[in-house]
Amino acid sequence: MRLPERRPERVTVLAGGIGGSAFLRGLIKARPDARITVIGNTADDITLFGLRVCPDLDTVMYTLGGGISEERKWGREDETWVIKEELAAYGVEPTWFGLGDKDVATHLVRTQMLDAGYSLTAVTEALCARWKLPVRLLPMSDDRIETHVVVDDPEQPGRRKAIHFQEYWVRHQASIPAHQIVAVGQDKAKPAPGVLDAIADCDVLIIPPSNPVVSVGTILGVPGIREAVRETSAPVIGLSPIIGTGPVRGMADKVLAAVGVASTASAVARYYGSRTSGGVLDGWLIDSSDAIQADSIAGAGIHVQAVPLWMTDETKTAAMADAALTLAEAVWR
Amino acid sequence: MRLPERRPERVTVLAGGIGGSAFLRGLIKARPDARITVIGNTADDITLFGLRVCPDLDTVMYTLGGGISEERKWGREDETWVIKEELAAYGVEPTWFGLGDKDVATHLVRTQMLDAGYSLTAVTEALCARWKLPVRLLPMSDDRIETHVVVDDPEQPGRRKAIHFQEYWVRHQASIPAHQIVAVGQDKAKPAPGVLDAIADCDVLIIPPSNPVVSVGTILGVPGIREAVRETSAPVIGLSPIIGTGPVRGMADKVLAAVGVASTASAVARYYGSRTSGGVLDGWLIDSSDAIQADSIAGAGIHVQAVPLWMTDETKTAAMADAALTLAEAVWR
Repeated sequence: MRLPERRPERVTVLAGGIGGSAFLRGLIKARPDARITVIGNTADDITLFGLRVCPDLDTVMYTLGGGISEERKWGREDETWVIKEELAAYGVEPTWFGLGDKDVATHLVRTQMLDAGYSLTAVTEALCARWKLPVRLLPMSDDRIETHVVVDDPEQPGRRKAIHFQEYWVRHQASIPAHQIVAVGQDKAKPAPGVLDAIADCDVLIIPPSNPVVSVGTILGVPGIREAVRETSAPVIGLSPIIGTGPVRGMADKVLAAVGVASTASAVARYYGSRTSGGVLDGWLIDSSDAIQADSIAGAGIHVQAVPLWMTDETKTAAMADAALTLAEAVWR
Repeated sequence: MRLPERRPERVTVLAGGIGGSAFLRGLIKARPDARITVIGNTADDITLFGLRVCPDLDTVMYTLGGGISEERKWGREDETWVIKEELAAYGVEPTWFGLGDKDVATHLVRTQMLDAGYSLTAVTEALCARWKLPVRLLPMSDDRIETHVVVDDPEQPGRRKAIHFQEYWVRHQASIPAHQIVAVGQDKAKPAPGVLDAIADCDVLIIPPSNPVVSVGTILGVPGIREAVRETSAPVIGLSPIIGTGPVRGMADKVLAAVGVASTASAVARYYGSRTSGGVLDGWLIDSSDAIQADSIAGAGIHVQAVPLWMTDETKTAAMADAALTLAEAVWR
């Protein structure tokens, strides 16, 4: 693959948790000198046992900081579960959330700082200082936004209820029908300091293969962010989180169904939309096996390229990142 | 020892942490059928990392519930220290407080319940439910009271400063001169629900060999409690925490010096005072080796008996408890 002559210096990435983090590893490997800003999803944040938990921010932090469990892809390596067992012994609910001891320490520091009046941006910066992150990690907003999912009530047939995204995702493993997804608090939220600038003042904006609804969708849904993405002079390149008819990882198909979007690379591209017609994408990478969908995506006004999109190792992921930056280069010219 | 004919059914104990807990074990062994109410000291409580920590209540709860570290006499058996190490890795102060992982779970439950609006009394009852305590444990107050110690400032020679009792006790091991001891918040505090009744409606009130200044002293200092102790129809029997010129355990001598009281069984008895002359004691047990001080104590209007007071095992401690109840019997008649 030919490297573009003008190499992007400033790359901004809108990231969810696991998919975003895996992509970021590849991006850092592909462009070790780039100045990367990550705008992290905070809409799956939750308060548990009085602790403020930010799963996506922490997944990015632990992954890029070298503290992630490589097996689970969330939480800490060599984690212990004493707190979780003790809370269960006290009969405290919920018991379905995987809260490891090392992880609890992160949440304790965060909660204490938030209670002392620091913004989530400041707290995230302080936490990341320990991990010497090779990127700048910004929460999408300092305001509290929590995604809830309207589901069939498992206990009252025929009725629906709204539950926290984590309850839907972790407790129910997205296995009950989701009818609606609502990011509570989002309508009154503001982008965190630095977020709009990171979108406006970058050389390329990347939407990695994160969940298009509950990760990237909630970032774009913060008032002002979608507009900034639409207006930036940088090219906006996305990578499909769907290969064939299934998600690269996770359960994106379930939440796509809830918003009426088919689980295909093409449908997700059209869901994001082209910047030429009110959407947020200039370019879209799809997996080689989905090359047949390229014409449909191009027909929506989105530059498209088919490359291998399985993030099976860092080298392959770096090649994906390189392909995204190369596509950005093509869009620029 | 002859057992008294009328055996006390309702025993109320004003307890600090380690000494009070050890005594309570003996009392339960001596009187397994007694209904025991423990009024626990809360003035060494502290908020660390946003967690509300109640060291004395927890020591009583863990000791009588079977969860205590038998070696350390505080905190949990088979404790792990992951959280403490992680907080240190984040550079969060203080690092001198021994916060084990199991212990943190207790504090998480407590903090969450307090934040939800439950009183410390309700929280303590909920926590104790897990441990199936053989006593009723009441905090002395639901209001926040925190003992501070005025010390020579270690960093600015010639100057003094007030530090939290835990910092004085745990960090400095009571090794810097203490000039004054102030239970901040105490003047406006109220006894917790049930406390005054437990003092008024008992058959005997016991002051175990706890710290007379920072444990029993702070309980008695809650407005209304000293008066209730003075007015109860039950005999009030204390056990000396000093044998010879040193504390049975801990560093009571240091804080006694700060209030101008000599470190002897007799001086502590006079510090508490006789109920016949404005104090709180009817009877006082001293160690056999201190029998020579008996006359001085009796001269202050306090019934006195010399018995072995080293709590080296539960059988010996049970004999002490039995001696206290026997002395109560003598005072009644």
